[in-house]
Amino acid sequence: MLIGGAEDKLRDKVILSRFAKFAGGAEGHVVVISTASSLGDAATEMYRELFLGLGIGRVTGLRPDDRAEAEDPRAALALADATGVFLTGGNQLRLSSVVGGTKLGASLFLAHDRGAAIAGTSAGASAMAAHMLAFGQSGPTPKNRMAQLSAGLGILQHVVVDQHFEQRSRIGRLLSVVAQSPSLIGIGLDEDTAAIVYADHTLEVVGRGAVTIVDGSAVRTDAHRGKGHRPLMMSGVVLHSLPSGYWFDLRARRLLPGAGPRRAEREASE
Amino acid sequence: MLIGGAEDKLRDKVILSRFAKFAGGAEGHVVVISTASSLGDAATEMYRELFLGLGIGRVTGLRPDDRAEAEDPRAALALADATGVFLTGGNQLRLSSVVGGTKLGASLFLAHDRGAAIAGTSAGASAMAAHMLAFGQSGPTPKNRMAQLSAGLGILQHVVVDQHFEQRSRIGRLLSVVAQSPSLIGIGLDEDTAAIVYADHTLEVVGRGAVTIVDGSAVRTDAHRGKGHRPLMMSGVVLHSLPSGYWFDLRARRLLPGAGPRRAEREASE
Repeated sequence: MLIGGAEDKLRDKVILSRFAKFAGGAEGHVVVISTASSLGDAATEMYRELFLGLGIGRVTGLRPDDRAEAEDPRAALALADATGVFLTGGNQLRLSSVVGGTKLGASLFLAHDRGAAIAGTSAGASAMAAHMLAFGQSGPTPKNRMAQLSAGLGILQHVVVDQHFEQRSRIGRLLSVVAQSPSLIGIGLDEDTAAIVYADHTLEVVGRGAVTIVDGSAVRTDAHRGKGHRPLMMSGVVLHSLPSGYWFDLRARRLLPGAGPRRAEREASE
Repeated sequence: MLIGGAEDKLRDKVILSRFAKFAGGAEGHVVVISTASSLGDAATEMYRELFLGLGIGRVTGLRPDDRAEAEDPRAALALADATGVFLTGGNQLRLSSVVGGTKLGASLFLAHDRGAAIAGTSAGASAMAAHMLAFGQSGPTPKNRMAQLSAGLGILQHVVVDQHFEQRSRIGRLLSVVAQSPSLIGIGLDEDTAAIVYADHTLEVVGRGAVTIVDGSAVRTDAHRGKGHRPLMMSGVVLHSLPSGYWFDLRARRLLPGAGPRRAEREASE
């Protein structure tokens, strides 16, 4: 579950409620990993209160500050019976550089394989992908050297995720990444909006804004000839802007047939 | 020639020089129409100096303030031997509501048919299209009621033009217009950037930024069900972001073959 940041925490809590449901409710054990955050334990405590309030049985906070702490077997052990993991916002490079490739990182994969719901908001969403958008500039026109990729935690393959997408005008940098790496599908998340990616590679949109999907499979580009910070040529990118209730097939790279909010039917068959 | 506003007037003047060349140089007569501008005659005077400095033989200023003045045969007559017409920036609704459907408006068509170069910057670029983006909100996510269309001057058919595109983050409103009107090709112009549209419906990009082309011919959308200011669903929009030197075929809706800056070859064959 990829969340674009600034998800509603006071009113309907549509996105966080959805996560709480995926994470097993009263029987569930959610681990909050707040390594990305600069707020110290405040982020963990805020989400602990929220998830307990949404009926989750048990919430554990983890905040490894360096790789040694992320290698500590006790951190990995905390995930052993987790039914949900929540990665807070902050700086995605902190998350990838502290947790990536450690025992805790490996136990995230195990939890995911076991069927635990893994959610990340803002930096936590970006870090979930194998190819992580680390930082970059804002603005709608794609330019050379506009964004920097790093290796993320790798829960999701073949995508690159950007967040606060509308609010920080980040379509240019997502386009520039897809121009250089058309094998990746770009996923841009508006604030208070989530993309739920299921095991069958379908994606459901939930929340107030839209999820933008950038498909570069047919792109023509001069990205390999980019110079300085000049605009990049890219021709034939396919764009999808999907509000709440719409579904997308990430493998077929198209809107799921029966366009229109389908959540109700889908949930009925779950 | 559609210019995204804020074109360079001090240094290389790449865009204005190009227009001066199209407009016939020393043999040329350029008419500057500054109706859109709120600067009074200052805009006319600035462009008069610029075009004379770029070698244009004669420059005439026209600034009809109301429809009666635009119906005055003397205004139309000023265009009779014009080799170039330049529409300044300002408010495109002023241009369309004062000039649209008047004798002056008709003489613009005649000048265009005769082969005069017609250029518009900012509001002047938007007003050139038959379907004019009149005003709207900024931001990258397309939403219902985000932009308002009016009838423009109609020099260009089948397109809708937006300007200050990168600087004012206007991709969302252009997408929302194309969602509602997929028969129109959306053209987004960055500042100091121009799209030159030739008689054969090819488009050349000149200037510092990029021209964004939004092709909605294969779009699926729920625009007809839009409510309030909520995000619109649009799936399968094809996007092209083209820097200086690239060419696009507006009829075939694709990059011209032999991608890469082709201005040199093209000019050689002109």
